[in-house]
Amino acid sequence: MQTLSVTTKSQFHCVNITSQIQKVLKDSGVKNGLITLFVPHTTAAITINEGADPSVIHDIISELDKIIPLSNNYQHLEGNSAAHIKSSLVGCSETILIENGTLVLGTWQAIFFCEFDGPRNRKVLLKIIEE
Amino acid sequence: MQTLSVTTKSQFHCVNITSQIQKVLKDSGVKNGLITLFVPHTTAAITINEGADPSVIHDIISELDKIIPLSNNYQHLEGNSAAHIKSSLVGCSETILIENGTLVLGTWQAIFFCEFDGPRNRKVLLKIIEE
Amino acid sequence: MQTLSVTTKSQFHCVNITSQIQKVLKDSGVKNGLITLFVPHTTAAITINEGADPSVIHDIISELDKIIPLSNNYQHLEGNSAAHIKSSLVGCSETILIENGTLVLGTWQAIFFCEFDGPRNRKVLLKIIEE
Repeated sequence: MQTLSVTTKSQFHCVNITSQIQKVLKDSGVKNGLITLFVPHTTAAITINEGADPSVIHDIISELDKIIPLSNNYQHLEGNSAAHIKSSLVGCSETILIENGTLVLGTWQAIFFCEFDGPRNRKVLLKIIEE
Repeated sequence: MQTLSVTTKSQFHCVNITSQIQKVLKDSGVKNGLITLFVPHTTAAITINEGADPSVIHDIISELDKIIPLSNNYQHLEGNSAAHIKSSLVGCSETILIENGTLVLGTWQAIFFCEFDGPRNRKVLLKIIEE
Repeated sequence: MQTLSVTTKSQFHCVNITSQIQKVLKDSGVKNGLITLFVPHTTAAITINEGADPSVIHDIISELDKIIPLSNNYQHLEGNSAAHIKSSLVGCSETILIENGTLVLGTWQAIFFCEFDGPRNRKVLLKIIEE
């Protein structure tokens, strides 16, 4: 198991971690298999979406904030229920295929750590399963 | 493949199944790898979120019910379209890392079976892949 | 790694790809393990939900369109931000268990490719990991 560190800089912040994951894969020497990413936090998530135009991630963050408002008669007293709900909707893990030593991603895809209750120092765990 | 039984007690009910999964893992003797959980139902889901304060799960259930109301001009005649929609948004599977014979979960994380159309007797399927 | 082709015929279109995946599995000869499906697109997704009554998929598509409207002051200039947001909420991968040479799905479950910005020619990538 490998651990990546991610520093988020605002309350809502999606950080592109694709190159960090590619480096771990390259260092592993694995040519074919799967890589599973796991976020060990309950107010964050992981997603794969467009990495080319930053306005896509902006729109995802903004629309999630409209759908799941920060205040909405929540019972949890820490004030971050919206972040917990977003975490369950976006999800805390992803599995990506490995072929010929590279992550198999579509032309426009990048892997993002999604912070919904930052800024914080966060972790992403990952494990590579060789085919 | 292993099968866990889960009994849900109300229409919306998230059941913490972490200890059941930990027991299956311990009995397997597997030290390192992945465990994949799969819910074979279309009106339920699986999520990982905070297990310490039950108000977090309460807020998740309550907010999902606000976002996806029970009645909203749905076509499906069984009256449980909201449950189907929540199932696709939360998702019916999770993959968790195994390290040193234990599930790798964050401090606050627990694994929940999410019932959206209960009460019912349900199942969770799981398979452990050794590294 | 295998690649399936999926042709979508309208802006929103969920295509049942269960039989295509079952065929790949049968041809592989693998009896036990996992199959990971991955959509290499950022305006599409994959989900598992009811395949018997097409009104369920209709309701999922229709409700997602209500929750995430096509226009909502998005910044991304291509006009398909709603599709990107739906992709991150529904998710671009699924992992399914294989037992005795068959996909382990519940009675009502089918696997759907979800198009949110069609019509287009799309791909689903998959890899089988033998237990």
